[in-house]
Amino acid sequence: MPETNRPLVISAPAPRTLDLIFTAQALRRLRERYRIVEADPENIAGLGAETLAEVGYIVGQPPLDEKTLERMPRLRAILNVESNLINNMPYEVLFQRGIHVLTTGQVFAEPVAEMGLAMALNLARGIVDADIAFREGREIWGGEGNRSARLLSGSEIGIIGFGDLGKALNRVLSGFRAKIRVYDPWLPASLLRDNDVEPASLDTVLTKSDFVFVVAAVTSENEGFLDAKAFAMMRPGAAFILLSRAGVIDFDALVAAVESGHVLAASDVFPEEPLPLDHPVRRLPGFLRSAHRAGALDAAFKRMGEMVLEDMDLMDRDLPPMRCRRAERETVARMRSRPVTVN
Amino acid sequence: MPETNRPLVISAPAPRTLDLIFTAQALRRLRERYRIVEADPENIAGLGAETLAEVGYIVGQPPLDEKTLERMPRLRAILNVESNLINNMPYEVLFQRGIHVLTTGQVFAEPVAEMGLAMALNLARGIVDADIAFREGREIWGGEGNRSARLLSGSEIGIIGFGDLGKALNRVLSGFRAKIRVYDPWLPASLLRDNDVEPASLDTVLTKSDFVFVVAAVTSENEGFLDAKAFAMMRPGAAFILLSRAGVIDFDALVAAVESGHVLAASDVFPEEPLPLDHPVRRLPGFLRSAHRAGALDAAFKRMGEMVLEDMDLMDRDLPPMRCRRAERETVARMRSRPVTVN
Amino acid sequence: MPETNRPLVISAPAPRTLDLIFTAQALRRLRERYRIVEADPENIAGLGAETLAEVGYIVGQPPLDEKTLERMPRLRAILNVESNLINNMPYEVLFQRGIHVLTTGQVFAEPVAEMGLAMALNLARGIVDADIAFREGREIWGGEGNRSARLLSGSEIGIIGFGDLGKALNRVLSGFRAKIRVYDPWLPASLLRDNDVEPASLDTVLTKSDFVFVVAAVTSENEGFLDAKAFAMMRPGAAFILLSRAGVIDFDALVAAVESGHVLAASDVFPEEPLPLDHPVRRLPGFLRSAHRAGALDAAFKRMGEMVLEDMDLMDRDLPPMRCRRAERETVARMRSRPVTVN
Amino acid sequence: MPETNRPLVISAPAPRTLDLIFTAQALRRLRERYRIVEADPENIAGLGAETLAEVGYIVGQPPLDEKTLERMPRLRAILNVESNLINNMPYEVLFQRGIHVLTTGQVFAEPVAEMGLAMALNLARGIVDADIAFREGREIWGGEGNRSARLLSGSEIGIIGFGDLGKALNRVLSGFRAKIRVYDPWLPASLLRDNDVEPASLDTVLTKSDFVFVVAAVTSENEGFLDAKAFAMMRPGAAFILLSRAGVIDFDALVAAVESGHVLAASDVFPEEPLPLDHPVRRLPGFLRSAHRAGALDAAFKRMGEMVLEDMDLMDRDLPPMRCRRAERETVARMRSRPVTVN
Repeated sequence: MPETNRPLVISAPAPRTLDLIFTAQALRRLRERYRIVEADPENIAGLGAETLAEVGYIVGQPPLDEKTLERMPRLRAILNVESNLINNMPYEVLFQRGIHVLTTGQVFAEPVAEMGLAMALNLARGIVDADIAFREGREIWGGEGNRSARLLSGSEIGIIGFGDLGKALNRVLSGFRAKIRVYDPWLPASLLRDNDVEPASLDTVLTKSDFVFVVAAVTSENEGFLDAKAFAMMRPGAAFILLSRAGVIDFDALVAAVESGHVLAASDVFPEEPLPLDHPVRRLPGFLRSAHRAGALDAAFKRMGEMVLEDMDLMDRDLPPMRCRRAERETVARMRSRPVTVN
Repeated sequence: MPETNRPLVISAPAPRTLDLIFTAQALRRLRERYRIVEADPENIAGLGAETLAEVGYIVGQPPLDEKTLERMPRLRAILNVESNLINNMPYEVLFQRGIHVLTTGQVFAEPVAEMGLAMALNLARGIVDADIAFREGREIWGGEGNRSARLLSGSEIGIIGFGDLGKALNRVLSGFRAKIRVYDPWLPASLLRDNDVEPASLDTVLTKSDFVFVVAAVTSENEGFLDAKAFAMMRPGAAFILLSRAGVIDFDALVAAVESGHVLAASDVFPEEPLPLDHPVRRLPGFLRSAHRAGALDAAFKRMGEMVLEDMDLMDRDLPPMRCRRAERETVARMRSRPVTVN
Repeated sequence: MPETNRPLVISAPAPRTLDLIFTAQALRRLRERYRIVEADPENIAGLGAETLAEVGYIVGQPPLDEKTLERMPRLRAILNVESNLINNMPYEVLFQRGIHVLTTGQVFAEPVAEMGLAMALNLARGIVDADIAFREGREIWGGEGNRSARLLSGSEIGIIGFGDLGKALNRVLSGFRAKIRVYDPWLPASLLRDNDVEPASLDTVLTKSDFVFVVAAVTSENEGFLDAKAFAMMRPGAAFILLSRAGVIDFDALVAAVESGHVLAASDVFPEEPLPLDHPVRRLPGFLRSAHRAGALDAAFKRMGEMVLEDMDLMDRDLPPMRCRRAERETVARMRSRPVTVN
Repeated sequence: MPETNRPLVISAPAPRTLDLIFTAQALRRLRERYRIVEADPENIAGLGAETLAEVGYIVGQPPLDEKTLERMPRLRAILNVESNLINNMPYEVLFQRGIHVLTTGQVFAEPVAEMGLAMALNLARGIVDADIAFREGREIWGGEGNRSARLLSGSEIGIIGFGDLGKALNRVLSGFRAKIRVYDPWLPASLLRDNDVEPASLDTVLTKSDFVFVVAAVTSENEGFLDAKAFAMMRPGAAFILLSRAGVIDFDALVAAVESGHVLAASDVFPEEPLPLDHPVRRLPGFLRSAHRAGALDAAFKRMGEMVLEDMDLMDRDLPPMRCRRAERETVARMRSRPVTVN
């Protein structure tokens, strides 16, 4: 392809790197099809008029102001590979111009869903404590060790939030003949039914589930919406599994609910990360801990690069991007997940 | 129902008890429909001619000799709720007379399959060690902690043995878009394909799988068939999950293969149960232990009673039993699983 | 393989032929592994002592008496490729000796299920009459032509009989999110639930279904059990689809129910085959006719040979046959389907 | 709700009517929640400044100019219930302002998919001609009548276009264990794989399929792209099923391909509708005709109203619409399906 026909891409993917999100082969393809300008995210404006005039895509989430955007008349999309949208660019201007703001967070859906299922099965069968007991020669053999064990098969399951992660969770649960109810106020009921789950109110999900999975993003409206009252509504012995962000729950209330023996819980996210060494959840029985590792698999990161290539290919052909998630005019300002600083 | 129309059932379910395998409601139904004679399993012959003459069903696996069987002309079925067939009755006579020998072991398929999946996910994500590290303040946050993590989704999975347990495993794996290969020399290839799995040789299953599940029963022919050579054929880092009986593998060879770092493993069964306190597997890194607890859930035991009632109902109507597994003339003598002594 | 090690097979598959049920390749395999003796079905006894003494398998359903069977001490199985069991051999003797009586009728399950689904969709959308109208220039365009059209998706469906055919039907219906109820008194309710269908009484199936599929075999007990009263119970406008044998219904009553406009119907089977030219069903509006063609596809016949080879291979290794259906001691005498005379 | 809080909706759904697309209950809900102004689609501008100032939604696809749009500052969405986008409003202005242009065509996906499957099964089994023969006493019984019959189960299937209709088709085909390949240049390959279909080139779809379903919309780029050369590439005896618009194929070439006996075909759409009485396709053997009736079921129209209510409910809460399909800036000008004039 002649040099000038290859669209120009600004690469500013911090905290990711191109090597993290592209396989060697995908990176080769990227360089073949595009002219890549590696840029300091803090100084996109400094790239020079000639470069800015030709920018087709930005990979990353650098701060941008209206002026700089005006200098990029051919910009089609910002491919945010960190995936938590922060308020560092004039989104309204982007939407008016039809510049897509795309996120690649769905790469985490599958690994997080697998971790969520693993957590549910671990809580249902007491696997961690049983293994520790076995190491120490205190294991209990056979049915005696299963007093509080239970099955996922045929159980009632609640999912709070039904974005990519909720859908992935629903898929890995598909072999369990469970009754699955979903609470997601951002989605129409009929769309949930199309996914073979039952739309339900938050109260129904809390009161009727043996397992509750929380995969809702934090927004300006739902911070801490799962609190002591919510945990009290849960079935005694039910399992609460937190996979999205700690901000959506009252973490202390969850610790108290587990401490009291009312519910079991597992979490991949915490109010502070890293968590202070003296935090009570560290030694809380009935609680399974994971240090924000549910999604961050290399296989997931590598899919980001694939998604970026697939959507740029569509946009190169004047088609809308179909692979990444698009930021929405109505909700972009409501998202409150803090971006990650480590991968 | 007039007393004499209710079929007579000998109850000798040791080591189970009627209370273990029937819910209160099912037990009521059993007593309404049948005359129950609770018998000493060691002395069925001593029940008296009148009783023996009327026996329709035996629930349990008491020793029986040809003479005693001759005195039970109306016997239709022996419902073995322990489920490991032992050589304590003249099976050939039973087959000739068309007396069904039924086992209820499939109640364990679902709980064991869930445990097997949990083990696979635990090995894939290092969940136990990560939780222990977190308790001790040594946890690693984010992707750094996932160096050797992997996904089940899209992986290659091998299942050795495709009875009730293999099928249940295949079902809970259905949401993972994995490539599933099965080795089972007792089943025709087309039947495996009907179950959406790929029939494969043992070598193919061993060499091409990221996860190998062993759910084959021990027979006179397959004791120790998974040995050092088999483990050496496995992919480096693959996971070996043993769910049926320790007798099918060379346990020491498995320990060595894990110790060397070649594979990861999990097991619910052990060469001796309970296992000596100094057995090396107790502290072996890369090994997940479960003390023969995978199947023995109360919910599973209670299904045995249901199965017994459903099949007796069919036989009462001169129909063949369809719920329990029937012992087969060709293979009854080949089965070598030791019966359990505790539930 | 040395000649004498190859098991001896009597071939008497009438009305099938080896060429009908084996592909060229399968036939080659059959001849490589077995010594084939093509026999006159009416004179198996005349084969000579030496031959009879070595017979391992009979492919076909020739008349056999007790004496002749005694002369075949090595007989393992009779593979009945016609598949309707007739009363021309001492089944009790076969069962006592552990000689399997196997049928291959399940090869028809898939083609019949596809035809059944096609019939349901045709009745739901009036496809035949619409095509005829189009040929004649009388077609009605758009929604006007859909006054009585309906969807299978989300409908309530009843299946009467849940053998191989019922299961195949359930499978091809799996993409329709329909509520499926099954009536089958020969199967335990829990087994139906395991197949993701709801066990139901005959009355419930008749009164609550938009589509009723009949796939029950004729037995000594169910001849004509679907009669005028049954059809009257059906929902107005519901569709009745008969796929097994005409003997299970009162055919005149079905004709009357369709004539009155109460229900729609389709059938692959008729009280007489061929049907008299003046039979009223030939021109009955609201009735879709198929001349016993639902199952008889070449692809189905060729699978019979595969099934025979797969089960003989298992029996050669002293394993029980797992591919064909086995005749059951309790029910063999109850089956009343007339064998076919043409393929 | 106080009058002034209820959003104002302009109703101009021609050729639909509110009664066609809303059930009585849904219409009640619509009137409770919204102020409905029934408008002449040709004179939206004439509604008066006060009304226009308050318009929140327009149900329909009336012609709109930039000036009129300026007078509707609160307009959130145009809900086009006809569903073929025509060029009668300044879409670019709408996109700039973030006014959603929504279509409800996915209500037709399920009925069209069922019709498409019915057509495939009809072609595979010759059902129409067999029924006509039966009416006329010329039917052929049993396998003799199945010389060219084939199964969908296990076949190779190609789908051209994978929008709502392609997905619905994939769903109703899910019980057939078929190999499904999809050609859709507007979608990334990985998205197709996520739907369990294999992305393929057009040539591969044409040359390797036993059944080809065409569900692609007409665009400015694909008119007539399936032509004589394409049909010639198909497998002899394969079935071609046209469900979207006649504009995507060279209809005369299809007629010729069927006439020559090379392929079978079915179509719901025609180059002229109604079709001239002397069009050769009317009596073409090997061709199944449907007069644009595949989608137009009452149940489908009624879902439009539901979709409209669900998305307006989301937008009332400042959330993006999730139920209807949104017109896309990149492609709105490329769509070329003629709108329907009858329902």
